[in-house]
Amino acid sequence: MSEEMIQTIFARRSIRKYTSEPISEENVQTLLEAAMAAPSGSNIKPWHFIVVSDREMLDALADVHPHGKMLYDAALCVAVCGVPEESRYWVQDCSAATENLLLAVAALGLGAVWLGVHPKEERVAPVRRVLGIPENIVPLNLLSIGHPAEEKEARTQYDEARVHRGGW
Amino acid sequence: MSEEMIQTIFARRSIRKYTSEPISEENVQTLLEAAMAAPSGSNIKPWHFIVVSDREMLDALADVHPHGKMLYDAALCVAVCGVPEESRYWVQDCSAATENLLLAVAALGLGAVWLGVHPKEERVAPVRRVLGIPENIVPLNLLSIGHPAEEKEARTQYDEARVHRGGW
Repeated sequence: MSEEMIQTIFARRSIRKYTSEPISEENVQTLLEAAMAAPSGSNIKPWHFIVVSDREMLDALADVHPHGKMLYDAALCVAVCGVPEESRYWVQDCSAATENLLLAVAALGLGAVWLGVHPKEERVAPVRRVLGIPENIVPLNLLSIGHPAEEKEARTQYDEARVHRGGW
Repeated sequence: MSEEMIQTIFARRSIRKYTSEPISEENVQTLLEAAMAAPSGSNIKPWHFIVVSDREMLDALADVHPHGKMLYDAALCVAVCGVPEESRYWVQDCSAATENLLLAVAALGLGAVWLGVHPKEERVAPVRRVLGIPENIVPLNLLSIGHPAEEKEARTQYDEARVHRGGW
């Protein structure tokens, strides 16, 4: 098991170009199951997932996110949202769930890119409006997903300068 | 590739009991490479990794973290730290790197648990002191790692109530 899993971690890249092929319901289900297998502080799971495949709504999200133009061509968007009142670790927990989802994307041969929303209020407000997100729920990101129309090399970005052994 | 990767995501569980076997240098390297393959906002990579395998320092970390008693038996601790002045997305980025590292742990047949530090200042200060972390660097978590001495079932925690289709 080990080598293939490690290779998938290196193979996951930010994919911004997609074919017009839709994402199957089975694949959507797998992505959500992977996301919710993430750890969370005290296992509170302070997350929600908004699944969007409607063309008009995808275009509306592309309109409002400053780096979201690839959503015009994406078959799917998942907005990962957190519930701050449920946990002080909501950003960590939702980010771990997001990374699980992105690795499942790579494992399924799909492509995706993580578009940050929180903590930039100028992004949070319009995303909240387009998706109808309640005030106590915070959109952490938009994940733009599709069948890839670009290829990137697998890679780590290992940097020894970021490693400290036996203490800082 | 896909099915094994997905199964590893489900197989990753919080493991708190370990044998006394040390973690090989090769495995430590793989864990760090996996962590640094994570995405980060604008690819800034605002992270640092402190690798601890010294018994005295592991015990000192166990002493100061309120839920860190398993560190007395762990062969390895990785403290994932962020640099807030480098990116407003440092918590997200370091959390994605953490999840990559934890999935690599599972892929290698090791076991680990994520111990939250930031944003609880009563945890940040003593961890900073034990590890000698500078003031502009924030310890996000401690990862307690070892060869597993307990088994847990693979699982998702899929919850349909957390899924919203076509908008909230």
